[in-house]
Amino acid sequence: MNAPQKIRLYDYFESGNAYKVRLVLSQLGIDFERVHLDILKGETRTAAFVARNANHRVPTLEWPDGRCLAESNAILFYLADGTRLLPNDAWKRAEVLQWMFFEQYSHEPNIAVARFWHFSGQATENAARLPEKMEGGTHALGVMENHLAERSYFVGEEYSIADIALYAYTHVAHEGGFDLVPYPAIRAWLDRVAAQPGHVRISDDVGELVDWAEDD
Amino acid sequence: MNAPQKIRLYDYFESGNAYKVRLVLSQLGIDFERVHLDILKGETRTAAFVARNANHRVPTLEWPDGRCLAESNAILFYLADGTRLLPNDAWKRAEVLQWMFFEQYSHEPNIAVARFWHFSGQATENAARLPEKMEGGTHALGVMENHLAERSYFVGEEYSIADIALYAYTHVAHEGGFDLVPYPAIRAWLDRVAAQPGHVRISDDVGELVDWAEDD
Repeated sequence: MNAPQKIRLYDYFESGNAYKVRLVLSQLGIDFERVHLDILKGETRTAAFVARNANHRVPTLEWPDGRCLAESNAILFYLADGTRLLPNDAWKRAEVLQWMFFEQYSHEPNIAVARFWHFSGQATENAARLPEKMEGGTHALGVMENHLAERSYFVGEEYSIADIALYAYTHVAHEGGFDLVPYPAIRAWLDRVAAQPGHVRISDDVGELVDWAEDD
Repeated sequence: MNAPQKIRLYDYFESGNAYKVRLVLSQLGIDFERVHLDILKGETRTAAFVARNANHRVPTLEWPDGRCLAESNAILFYLADGTRLLPNDAWKRAEVLQWMFFEQYSHEPNIAVARFWHFSGQATENAARLPEKMEGGTHALGVMENHLAERSYFVGEEYSIADIALYAYTHVAHEGGFDLVPYPAIRAWLDRVAAQPGHVRISDDVGELVDWAEDD
């Protein structure tokens, strides 16, 4: 298989960043296929994949015409533009981007990385650095709790890709050792996001799983 | 001084992230005032500033009507929308965002943090972690060099905020110990960016520097 027949997601099932894309594709009703690359086995480091994303990360999206796009939140913005998942108003779009950059800089590197160390068996070797991740993650959760205390969603009281970006790793934060009990506003918001029409879970098998031979 | 009279940038002179905003405001001819907050002295942790950005980071922009926006690349996108610094084409905008998220996730946490450790006198205490920053930064520079080998700018052969976002910390990467000699395409691109009309340097005193009493 060389060029995909429909939008192809280069995926890693446990990745919250990849899950964001699966969720948006599902909620927008976009048919897609999915190639699972095991990052723990180095499957994103092959020449064939690096040709699609020189930064060798999932998620990466590939279109039948050969275009590729990386960075989960850039993918979300592109897919959601013109849909109910991204406001048209310029200021609200700025706020959506603010929260998505917050997610990638202040949230994901702490909460997702702590979770990754746990499930990949690297918690012991990174034990000395875990307190810094816990402190950074706790700060990020505090910023979110404070914001959500008076709001239903992150931007303009409407569900958007800002919520999706932050939901991805927040709803599995306990897998990285973060206790969400002290964050009632976050927990209520997680429930609101999960109740959205077309919601799929991180463990749901969505899209058509296809094999991908490296030498294609 | 309570509400600003014109757009106010909460700034830290040595910050590449803040410099991005100074550069875009200058190139777009937007009049602005500037409050310098010394992050090394905790001046972003005051209640007055946290009320403007709960994540207590510079740059933060404040408008005379009280709106505040954080995250350098979200600010760039908002300011540049509708100008020559951001393409209108949806795919090119996706690519701009892809590079801006790459910058915040794969570039800045390595290259900017290594530089920060050096100039803030924290290099010795972080010596054990410096190799990881050097490896991550070197990878990011490799991705950039590879992309620029056949291009003049990051997206669509036009200067955009993607270039500005990546220029900010790349052009001072040597201050973090990164040698740019092995990256001829990056060095040629740095020269092209610096030759753009209205370019200002990170050390240039732009905007009106104003005092800001914390209890305002």
